This record gives sequence, C-alpha cells and structure tokens, in this order.
Amino acid sequence: MVIVMTPEATSDNIDSIVDLVATAGGEAYVTRGVSRTIIGLVGDVQQFETLDLNALPGVADVLRISAPYKLVSRENHVSRSVVSVAGVPIGGDHMTLIAGPCAVETPEQTLAAALMAKAAGASLLRGGAYKPRTSPYAFQGLGETGLKILSDVRAETGLPIVTEVVDAADVELVASYADMLQIGTRNMQNFALLQAAGEAGRPVMLKRGMSSTIEEWLMAAEYIAQRGNLDIVLCERGIRTFEKATRNTLDISAVPVAQRLSHLPVIVDPSHSGGKRDLVLPLSRAAIAVGADGIIVDVHPEPETALCDGPQALVGADLDELARVVATLPAMLGRTLAAAPERVATGV
Amino acid sequence: MVIVMTPEATSDNIDSIVDLVATAGGEAYVTRGVSRTIIGLVGDVQQFETLDLNALPGVADVLRISAPYKLVSRENHVSRSVVSVAGVPIGGDHMTLIAGPCAVETPEQTLAAALMAKAAGASLLRGGAYKPRTSPYAFQGLGETGLKILSDVRAETGLPIVTEVVDAADVELVASYADMLQIGTRNMQNFALLQAAGEAGRPVMLKRGMSSTIEEWLMAAEYIAQRGNLDIVLCERGIRTFEKATRNTLDISAVPVAQRLSHLPVIVDPSHSGGKRDLVLPLSRAAIAVGADGIIVDVHPEPETALCDGPQALVGADLDELARVVATLPAMLGRTLAAAPERVATGV
Amino acid sequence: MVIVMTPEATSDNIDSIVDLVATAGGEAYVTRGVSRTIIGLVGDVQQFETLDLNALPGVADVLRISAPYKLVSRENHVSRSVVSVAGVPIGGDHMTLIAGPCAVETPEQTLAAALMAKAAGASLLRGGAYKPRTSPYAFQGLGETGLKILSDVRAETGLPIVTEVVDAADVELVASYADMLQIGTRNMQNFALLQAAGEAGRPVMLKRGMSSTIEEWLMAAEYIAQRGNLDIVLCERGIRTFEKATRNTLDISAVPVAQRLSHLPVIVDPSHSGGKRDLVLPLSRAAIAVGADGIIVDVHPEPETALCDGPQALVGADLDELARVVATLPAMLGRTLAAAPERVATGV
Amino acid sequence: MVIVMTPEATSDNIDSIVDLVATAGGEAYVTRGVSRTIIGLVGDVQQFETLDLNALPGVADVLRISAPYKLVSRENHVSRSVVSVAGVPIGGDHMTLIAGPCAVETPEQTLAAALMAKAAGASLLRGGAYKPRTSPYAFQGLGETGLKILSDVRAETGLPIVTEVVDAADVELVASYADMLQIGTRNMQNFALLQAAGEAGRPVMLKRGMSSTIEEWLMAAEYIAQRGNLDIVLCERGIRTFEKATRNTLDISAVPVAQRLSHLPVIVDPSHSGGKRDLVLPLSRAAIAVGADGIIVDVHPEPETALCDGPQALVGADLDELARVVATLPAMLGRTLAAAPERVATGV
Repeated sequence: MVIVMTPEATSDNIDSIVDLVATAGGEAYVTRGVSRTIIGLVGDVQQFETLDLNALPGVADVLRISAPYKLVSRENHVSRSVVSVAGVPIGGDHMTLIAGPCAVETPEQTLAAALMAKAAGASLLRGGAYKPRTSPYAFQGLGETGLKILSDVRAETGLPIVTEVVDAADVELVASYADMLQIGTRNMQNFALLQAAGEAGRPVMLKRGMSSTIEEWLMAAEYIAQRGNLDIVLCERGIRTFEKATRNTLDISAVPVAQRLSHLPVIVDPSHSGGKRDLVLPLSRAAIAVGADGIIVDVHPEPETALCDGPQALVGADLDELARVVATLPAMLGRTLAAAPERVATGV
Repeated sequence: MVIVMTPEATSDNIDSIVDLVATAGGEAYVTRGVSRTIIGLVGDVQQFETLDLNALPGVADVLRISAPYKLVSRENHVSRSVVSVAGVPIGGDHMTLIAGPCAVETPEQTLAAALMAKAAGASLLRGGAYKPRTSPYAFQGLGETGLKILSDVRAETGLPIVTEVVDAADVELVASYADMLQIGTRNMQNFALLQAAGEAGRPVMLKRGMSSTIEEWLMAAEYIAQRGNLDIVLCERGIRTFEKATRNTLDISAVPVAQRLSHLPVIVDPSHSGGKRDLVLPLSRAAIAVGADGIIVDVHPEPETALCDGPQALVGADLDELARVVATLPAMLGRTLAAAPERVATGV
Repeated sequence: MVIVMTPEATSDNIDSIVDLVATAGGEAYVTRGVSRTIIGLVGDVQQFETLDLNALPGVADVLRISAPYKLVSRENHVSRSVVSVAGVPIGGDHMTLIAGPCAVETPEQTLAAALMAKAAGASLLRGGAYKPRTSPYAFQGLGETGLKILSDVRAETGLPIVTEVVDAADVELVASYADMLQIGTRNMQNFALLQAAGEAGRPVMLKRGMSSTIEEWLMAAEYIAQRGNLDIVLCERGIRTFEKATRNTLDISAVPVAQRLSHLPVIVDPSHSGGKRDLVLPLSRAAIAVGADGIIVDVHPEPETALCDGPQALVGADLDELARVVATLPAMLGRTLAAAPERVATGV
Repeated sequence: MVIVMTPEATSDNIDSIVDLVATAGGEAYVTRGVSRTIIGLVGDVQQFETLDLNALPGVADVLRISAPYKLVSRENHVSRSVVSVAGVPIGGDHMTLIAGPCAVETPEQTLAAALMAKAAGASLLRGGAYKPRTSPYAFQGLGETGLKILSDVRAETGLPIVTEVVDAADVELVASYADMLQIGTRNMQNFALLQAAGEAGRPVMLKRGMSSTIEEWLMAAEYIAQRGNLDIVLCERGIRTFEKATRNTLDISAVPVAQRLSHLPVIVDPSHSGGKRDLVLPLSRAAIAVGADGIIVDVHPEPETALCDGPQALVGADLDELARVVATLPAMLGRTLAAAPERVATGV
C-alpha cells in the first residue's frame, strides 16, 4: 500500500501517519521526493484499511496495488506517461530519436556527432562522459571535462543532453549539466544510485540490466519513483543469451510487455544490443514498428577512430537511411517524430 | 570443399571422383538428392586443388567455402534465394503471410481458419496434423486424418499447405499431402528427419531450435541441402532465456544476421515466440520491419476452445488489424505481399 | 489419471475401460508396453472417480498424480529405483562408473579404451556407433560396424554396452547389440525415438536436452515410461548458458532436484558438460559428492587422434586419479562402487 | 602492460614514468593503493619495451600479461594466494566455512546464529547489515545498527565478520566494523564501489554477477586489485539460466576454471544458488569436492521468521550434517578445515 502526499503536506502530517501505521502494527517507509512525499506501508493491508488513511490531512491518494512495483505500474495509471526532457517529449504520440557519440572524446568530435544527429532527426543528444567499462584498462570517459563539452555543444546545437552517471556521489554534478540522467545496464540494481537519481530533479533513462527480467527492471524504476521522481524512461538494450553472433539479444517483445505493465515510456537502443553497424538500421525499424516510444543510436564522425564502440556507430549513407526511416515509419504507427527545440538552449 | 554434380552426371562419374579423392588421402561423402548429387570432401584442401576437379566429367561446380555450412552459405551464392511453394514465392521482394490453426482439429474448424487466413492476406495455410508435445498426455494431432482435412481445405480455398513432420518414417506420407514440410524447434537437430526431408521433393521450413545458435541452425539446414534440396526457408520462433513474461524471447536480430550469412529466406513466427495474443501484432510489425521474408501466424475461429495454443491465436479485430499491417507495411521496405494462387488448387 | 494394468489383463479388459471412460466424457490413451499396458485418462478426474476403476478386471493400480509426469514421478513411488543393465545396478546404494570412447573408431581403439575403463573401475562400457553431429561434414559414426566392434569388446572384457541411438528406425537394430540404449541431448524431445525406445526391451539412458528444464526432461522420460519401460536412467550433461569458458554449464543442482521429483536414478556426464580434460576430475568428484547415482566418462587411448571429442577424453595419470576417486569418494556418501560382471558376457 | 611500484616510490618517480610513457605515444593510468602504486600502460607494447622501464627508480616490477586482467591473473603468479581475514586463512590447503544469518535482525538472533555457525565449524561470521533488495518495499537491513550488533557478536564469539557494502559512500564506515567486505552479485560491475573497496584496507569477497562470465568476474576483481588490494576472494553464487526449479544455477565448473585463470581463492555460496534448504547440503558437498577454497552458508535460529531468505537457511539436523561434512570431506581433497581464532577478538 502506498500513500502519496500532497505537495503541501507538512512534516507533522507525515509523522502522524507514521505513528498511526506503527500503532496498527505496520511499518511506514517515508521517501521525500523533489515534488512530493510518498509513504510505503509494509504490514497487514486489511488492518491499514480500517485506518481511513484517505481522510487524513496531507494525503493526496492511497494506492492498493497488487503488482510488486506500485508507482510505475499501469494498474492505477491507465494512460501512458509522456516524459519531457527540456521540452522534448518522450512517449504518447511521439517517436523520439536520441543520437550522439557513445563517448565524448573531443569538442570537435562531439559537435560533429551532434550535428549529424540533428540532421538525422534527433531531438536529444546522447554522449558519455563517465563510461562504465568491463576492463579497468579501457577508456573511462573524460568526466567533468566531458560534461562541459556536452554543455557547449548543447549551446551550439540546441539539443538537450542525455548522459550517464555511474556513481551516486556524482549525481549532483552530472545533474548540474545534464537534461536527462542515464543509468546503464550494469547499474540497474545499484540501488544507491537509483535513489540518488530519484532525488536529482532530472528525468532518468533507465537501461534494462543485461540479465534482468522485465519485473526486476520495473522494480528498479520503482526505486527511482519512490524518491518522488516519476519522469522515468525505460530503455531496452539487449539481454544476455547463448547466441554469439550478436553482442546481446535485443528483446523486442519487452517493449509491448513493459508498456502494458507500466505507464512509463519505453525506448530501444539498437546500437548496443546488436553491437554491429549493419544491424542498427533493421533493429531501428523493428523498434519503431513494435511501438517503441523512441530509439537511442550511436553516431560518430569517424567510427574507425572512436575510443568506444566504434563498430556500431552510424555514419554516412547509413545515417541518411536512418533519417529516412524516422521521417516515414512512425506515421505507420500513428506517431510523429519528436522535434528538436526550436531555439538554441543555452544551459539548463 | 563441395562438388556439385550436373543433373546428367552418371554413377561412374561419381565413383571416379570418390576414388580420386581417396587416392589423394581424403574422404568423399556422396549425397544423392532429388535433382542433383553433391560430394562433400573431407581432408587436405590444398591436396584436392591439385586434382583439377572442375575439369572432371559430370562436375557442375567445385565450391571452396570457409563457413562451416557450405551449400546454404551466402559466400558463393550472393543473391538471396526465392523458394516457391506450389507457386507461392517466399523471399526476394515478397513478404509472405502464412496463417492457419496451430492444430487441425475438425474439417469445420480448419476451413473456417483457412478462410480467415485468406481474408487476412495469407497465401499459404499452416496447420498441424502431427503435434510434438512436451507432455505425452497432451493432444498429439490427428495424424493422417488431419492431413486429409488439410487437403480438402486446400481444394476448397486454393491455399497450399504447410504442415509439420516429426518422424523420419512419416516424411513420405506427409509429403504426399503437403506442399511444404515444416520441421519444428524440438527436431532441429533430429538429423535423420532432416535428411529424410532433404529427399522428400518438397520445400522445407526449418524452425530454429529453441536454444540453438544461428550457426547451428544453418548447419541443420545444411543437412537438408546436402540431400539435394535447397528449397529451405528458415523460421525464427524465439529462443529460451531467463525472461518469464514471454513464452520465448523472439530473437529479432536473427533475421538480418541469418540473411547475411545465408541465401535462404528467413521468416518469423510471432505467435509461438510471444505465446500471447496481444504480442502477435506488435511482433508481426517488428518482423516485417526488420526485413523478414514472411511471417507465420496462428489463427483460430474459436481460440478459447482450441486444443493447442489457443491463447496466442488471432481472431476478430486483431486479425483485421493484421490484414491492414500486411497490406501496408511491406511497401515501406520495398516489398509486396505475396498473393495466394488465383485458381483453386486441387491437390499436389 | 493413469491406470496400470496387470500383466494378465486381456484386450477385452482394456477395451471395456476405454469404452467406460468414453461414456464418462473422457479420452483413454492406451500404451502397450513390453511387460504391461498403461491407460492414460484425459478429462474430468472427478467424473472418473465415480467409475470405481480400481475394481475393474485387469486393473493393477489407478494413480492420481498432480505432477505433469506421472509414471516417473516420486509422488506414488517413494523409494528410489535401481535399474539393472545386464546385471550391473544403477541407483540405490551404488555409484556406477560408465566409461569408454566417445566414438567407436576401430576394434583396437575400442578394446584399449574398454580395458582402460575397466581398470579404472567402470562396470559398463560406453561407445558411440551412431554420432549425432552438428555438422554434416563431421564423422557420423561407424553404424552397425561399430555395434559389432562393441559386441566383440563386450565378449572380451565382460563389460555390458551403453550406446546411442539417433533414429526411431534404428532402435530395433541397436537394441539387438546394446545392453542399454542412450538417447542424446539433441534427441531429448524426439518423441518418436522416445516411444520406440520405450518398446525396445532395453534400459534407456536419457540425456537432458541442452536447454531443457528439469520438468521437460521428466516429461520426456514419461514418453518412454508410457510404453511400459520404467528402466530409465537420467543423465545430466550440462546446459546452455552465456558462459563461454566451458562447453556447457554442468547443472549440478539438477541431480538432487531430479532425485526428489522422480524415482529414477540420475547420473552425470562430466566429460561433455565441461568439454575439457582438466575439468573432468573436479566435476566427477562434484557429481559423486552431490549424490549422483553414477558418472559417464570419456576415455581414449590416444586422445590427440580421436575422431570425436578428444580434448575431453581421459588417459594416463588423469585416469589413475579417477580410479582413486571412484574407489574412495562414494563411501563418504554411503555408497559402493558398482562392480563389473564377474564372468565374461558373451552377448545379450 | 602494468608497472608495479615499490612501497618507497615517490610521486616524482611516478610522474617521470607517466611523462616517459606519454613521450612514447602511450597513456599511463596511475592507481594509488593502500600499500603500493600501480601504473597501467595503454598503447604500443613494443614501443614501451624500448623504454627500459624496469631500470627506472621506484619500479618494483613490469608485467606483460596477455589476459585482459593482469594483477589477478595466474600468468605471472603461479602459486595460488591465501587471503587472511583477521587471521583466518582462505585458500591454500584450507577449506574455510563462513556461516551466519542472511541479514542481521536482532542482537539475539545474530548471536544465536553465530554460535550455531561456530559449532558447525565456521571460522568466519557472515551477516548483512545493508541488504540490496530487488524490491524497495522489502527489508533493506539495519545499517550501522546492524554493524554494531555484528561487532558485539564478534566480541562474544571471536568470529571475524564478513558483511556486505552496497554503496561506495558507505565503504569507510563498513570497513571500520568489518573484517572482510562483501560485494554482492548486483554490484559486481559497480565500478565506483569496487574501487572504493580496493582502497579500504580490508580483504574483499567478490560475488560473481548473476549473468557475468568468468572473464568479467576477473575483470571486476582487477578493478579492486588496481587500487593496491590483492586480498580478494571470489565467490560463485549461481548464474541466471532458463531453469526454474532452482533460484539460480550453481556453476560448479566456475570453481576450477577460475582457479586456473587466477591465483585468487574461490569459494561457493550453496545457499543463494539453490535457494532451498534441501539443496544446501548436496551443493556444499559438491563445492568442497570440486575443490572450492571455502563455502558460505546461511544459518538462522528460526528460519520461518527470518526477514530475508529464510527458506534456504540451515538449522537443526541439517546444520549437524553440515558440521559432519566439513569435518570429514576436505581431507579427501588434502585440505584442512580452517579453524576459528582461538582467542576472542575484541574488535578490528
């Protein structure tokens, strides 16, 4: 059972509820979010129902939800959500293209990639300044220097920024530059990071863990939501199977399944799932056709020199074809390509 | 190294080659197909090259192929194949819809399903008379009675028949009714069955084993091809993973991967991969968009009473929507929906 | 619900039951085994209970079993079974070592391997005459020639023979030579083969499918049992996962799990699961320690020239160490190493 | 290529090497550990070899290692390591039993579990104060209160403490109480946490990610080692597969494989892999028999009321049997059960 408090609820309102729940033999977990406080109740639901919680001061809503995830479930939130990233919508009738380099390397490379992305129809720029790498000897990203480059490129191109954060301790810094925080596959169950992201006041893109079930993915989203942040976009990026011909196995069914279980938008990463350039276009088409709310694609001006995942980055004719696909295919599904902000953004 | 003989090659021609190869320290495996004989050579390739095999009487071609599969590889067969099933094409610029009941139950049910399939745009009728079931206590199919029903429905609707065979001993019987043989996921490495199907004089649809790699799938196709039958269509039907929300995980990437490795057409089964009716439409769209050469879909006039896999069979509005999708989406990919034969077929 | 008939039951007894069940709205599947006939009932169990089936002539037992597998379930068969292979026990307080070459290649190699096996403590000889191979270009076994070699080696060493059959059409021939039929991982759901093996009058070793659940494995065993043959030994041989350091992932937990669900003996194949010689000994120790009823190990006098799976065959000091392990470790678990037959067997 | 500096190396020594490497066109990553500094070189190895790095001041060793992990590889560290946890050895000829409650709940429950563990032969106490839970609504552990309970129980029983840390920000606090830090399966690729653990001055137990390859596991260990901490114990705890009868699939082969690739000790968690009490004993025997350097087992005085993973905790006769197994089976492998410290520890 979950109690959602009104924005005006006071600390006293909250304390009263906690005490009341304790009296009834239950436990109340208070999570103070940016815009509202949520109280999760653990214990005997029937006992709680005798408490008339809805009538208490400061209570906006009391949800009784059978799914193990509550706030992100579609059970009490039938319409699907639209998340706004600095004015760019993800979800609803939109199909949003996010594109950019896997890693920020130099100002020139990042700007070139952003212009390529924009020309192809992207309304958001992706780019990693903090790269979680399997090997400690691999390029780990430029850190804050990379964030500054992204910020400059946003000023130049008007594209809001999506960038990864890998440590709870970095969330505040990254959020001071980014329009949307990305949590990567290896950190899907880094609960401290999820909670910090839930309090950062930025929309969050949550990639599915490479061996996570859809239920666990939604539970991870619930950790973010519990902190008061429901601006969450789920990103399917391939799961681990025995197949060796592709880097991961894109679980295309996860898109409609997650969309039915949750009101959150669901996008697809065709670059990291296949891991090969010649799979990006077919998988992008499949993602749009299956009904994804967006796709996130690696582009790079010179893939052969990329410091990270060059073999999957689009360039040249492949990127032109992507532009054609995103311009035409979404209409088949009753969707419109989300537009980039008209005026140049000059910071968050 | 593989030697393809001309249709006119004599037994003497073949014996001479076998002897010659033995003299060179190698071994020659002769497989006599319906239309041509193939000789696979195992041993020292460089030694074989000194034999000037191309110049021998009866030799049509000598292929040196690095892939572990030879005849189905695209290495020496750059253009993609079109397989004709009683005049209905699979592959090339076509997108072919195969539809029908999971299992043949009664003449009425089968005819009703066939008419539904045809109305939705199907040009081939699927329907199982021999059902491989995990449980020995589950409905195992009507056997030859089912084949006769299929044959009658073909006469009535003009739709050629695709039906499964599960035992090498049944191949001849099934082939006497069917226009295309289907080999199911559990039998993908039933090599005796593959070889029998390779000699049956019918096109074969080979479903991917539920835990097979793409390479093993192509190797299984090679078993069929070795017997002289290259009219093979590959069918991706989902693989086994840890995810429990779907029956299997549709490996959508397997379509472009297999199409690049092999010249054979590749189709998708959205019904058995998802295992749920509400996944069939999104997965069908994804399959067409990724570039599949066809889709094979379960339909049933009364899914709630179906003896097999009712929960995934399309009916009513869902089927209308499938009709709309196959009528419009293939054009996005430069493909045309394959048409059913104009005149009523009256048997094989 | 399953009706087990007495050995003396007549055809009339059986027909009466089938008719009675039909009258009650159900269906009866009759399977005539070597020693007894079994009738599986499908339909409304409560309706069947009104029929007083136990009292009918020819009925030995009526089993109501909730597991999807009936005859192999431990629900109505609490004590664990011991299977006798030409006098050599598998199960109970025994730990049985089966060893021999992966493939029969020559009389000399097979005899040498058998003598190695016997010296190491093996009481049964394994050896493949029919080899299911992923590639049609790989060595497929010697066929009946191989069976004759095995038979000669049995006469020489006294070790009963375990050998694989891959096609239902070959079962009778193979059973005429073999003491135990082996069904391999690729054929675990080759239901025609399972049924033929169920009628062959020989004990059967059923390997787990490489991506099969334990439940499916027991269902496959049920197909054999249904034909009247309960002399089945289950063999865990590794499952397919994402891990690449080993050929397959030995699912060691499957041994105690299957032993609790089924009364059938469960053995382990440490050679094919790991796929590497230096894993065979640790995995053999683990298998014995976990409580397996036996292990089946590849040995070869000259592994470097083996036509099949040489890299995993034991020889020399490794085999000596295996002998030491099987001589000492089973006692830790309250088991005794099964002994080879004392007198030389001279044929089946 | 990896340069290991002497303990006496100065910052100037390090800076000189970094400059020299840059001059040669490479990049040098400096990681300052507790006891020594390590410099990883990325670039052209042949170029580096001309630099005569071994002769530079402050350089202890220069390692050229072909495995992607360097410091934890057995390539240049042939003998297997023994890690000492407050005097208790893990590795070498020892077999170490770690036992205790999954989660610390109360002082009484923790002390009772510790006494049960000690009586069974455990020399180290496990117990979670920070619990990473899939659901945000599940019990998350007592935090520092739990650490204090563990500390008190250590004083009472003399058993050093192994406890989990889930956030880099908590490492210093947890290390102030714990004798060994545990990093759980969900955090195996939480690189910030790994690096913090590498600097904490405590041995680390690193659980394998539930879908990680053995290579990725060793790479994760390398992140810890890079910070100067080689006191790492690897813990296999089951991987994710399609099998549903067990919570995870214990990859028993991972023990010998990891022991051959790395010099680090490898232990097994039979409780979390199987997830069922009746699997703990067979899997413990299998782990010891395969050659694991230790096992870590859940015990609880009242499993039915446990706040976490009660169904897998040992108690009563099962625990007595575990005591018997650890007292007798290791000798079969030439190992001795590691003893608990003789005198009562009174804090770290």
